[in-house]
Amino acid sequence: MTSPLFEYLLRLGDDRLVLGHRLSEWCGHGPILEEDIATTNLALDLIGHATMLLRLAGEVEGKGRDEDALAYWRDERDFRNLQICELPRGDFGFTVVRQFLFDSWSWHLLEALTRSSHSELAAIAAKAHKETRYHLRHSSEWMLRLGDGTEESHRRAQDALDELWPYTGEFSDPDEVDRALHSNGVVPDLSALAEPWGVMARDVIARATLTVPQGVGGGGPMVMGGGRVGRHTEHLGHLLAEMQIVARSHPGAKW
Amino acid sequence: MTSPLFEYLLRLGDDRLVLGHRLSEWCGHGPILEEDIATTNLALDLIGHATMLLRLAGEVEGKGRDEDALAYWRDERDFRNLQICELPRGDFGFTVVRQFLFDSWSWHLLEALTRSSHSELAAIAAKAHKETRYHLRHSSEWMLRLGDGTEESHRRAQDALDELWPYTGEFSDPDEVDRALHSNGVVPDLSALAEPWGVMARDVIARATLTVPQGVGGGGPMVMGGGRVGRHTEHLGHLLAEMQIVARSHPGAKW
Repeated sequence: MTSPLFEYLLRLGDDRLVLGHRLSEWCGHGPILEEDIATTNLALDLIGHATMLLRLAGEVEGKGRDEDALAYWRDERDFRNLQICELPRGDFGFTVVRQFLFDSWSWHLLEALTRSSHSELAAIAAKAHKETRYHLRHSSEWMLRLGDGTEESHRRAQDALDELWPYTGEFSDPDEVDRALHSNGVVPDLSALAEPWGVMARDVIARATLTVPQGVGGGGPMVMGGGRVGRHTEHLGHLLAEMQIVARSHPGAKW
Repeated sequence: MTSPLFEYLLRLGDDRLVLGHRLSEWCGHGPILEEDIATTNLALDLIGHATMLLRLAGEVEGKGRDEDALAYWRDERDFRNLQICELPRGDFGFTVVRQFLFDSWSWHLLEALTRSSHSELAAIAAKAHKETRYHLRHSSEWMLRLGDGTEESHRRAQDALDELWPYTGEFSDPDEVDRALHSNGVVPDLSALAEPWGVMARDVIARATLTVPQGVGGGGPMVMGGGRVGRHTEHLGHLLAEMQIVARSHPGAKW
């Protein structure tokens, strides 16, 4: 049985590692040079946050695994990321909507984690929260541009929102790991974050002239999920294969 | 007939756009998280320099093309990059050796361009030169780590150097574009830069316990080349197809 804190740090780290990798797939493929650079910078921030979180996870675990061991040598079922992070990159509209949903949730969660009783986690959260503020501003602006843009950009953004919204139920679905850590003041009560997140998300979605799908996600009755306990879509395996191939081809290599 | 300055700016911009794109292919695929982040940052710097240079090229041309039009809507034969920039990314050793050869040349060229009589070009060169200093330090350190590392890393680095060195002849091979601009003090004499570049490159190569191939490149008799007049290897077409697909699928789209 692994410790709740180790599990929790993997969750936070894996969300950002997997999403950062997905976002990095845009590197060199954007439709505009400046947006290409901006998107890649976001990916780098996320991978940077993942590095800090996985490094701390390795220290907490105490078995000598560092952030590279955790990133490159765990298999699919040992990943603890939200399923929304592993879905294929889709079109640019899909990318924007996913980033917005994740950024807005991450912004609330990290803000709460800056008050963690665990001082190292609080320090990482503070640094990551500061950068996430810019991410959220960036993805919110794109939500408005796409949603309230051309007919095609609106349609693509709405399609993405319809597909992605059910996955947001996983954001705020606490389990025994959350409860054990919350009782010690290490992490916030996830369900208490669901409401302020929902208010913010629905506000931006409405201003983007988009419509929240009915009856699913956001705490609704039908939710996608399972990432926190290692149940993943078929997409994560492919992503990991690509991400891990170089490191695994040269085990222990000193570059 | 296009103006020499437009041609020259395309050359500088395309080198960095194409090499930046190649380097970005490592994004999310490095063997170590921190090096993955570092490599991607280098790619972003190069794409940033390309953006500035192509923007100025568009202004000099005066036909209303901006940096995105030049990056995404020119075909292979209109690209003016050095062939060394377009070769496939290869293994990590290949990437390091190519970056070192390019960085060391770029460092000399940009330094000379900071004294250009064209004030906007001089300003771009100054900004890019400052960042290239860090690139050069990074790639030089990796040259030493790989060349003077394990038997395998040494062998891979030497293989890469053997393959890449002939392409360096193209660095310092002035043509009428260079001569026209040099006579006005806009650009330096390329052939005068070959010697200080060669001294620096050979010094690092020697300290990395690697061997410069005989008889080719570096101003030697057999040189690869033609990139400056739009002759490219078969690899550029594939790179451009991938880089341009999103922009071209949505001509004139307002994202």
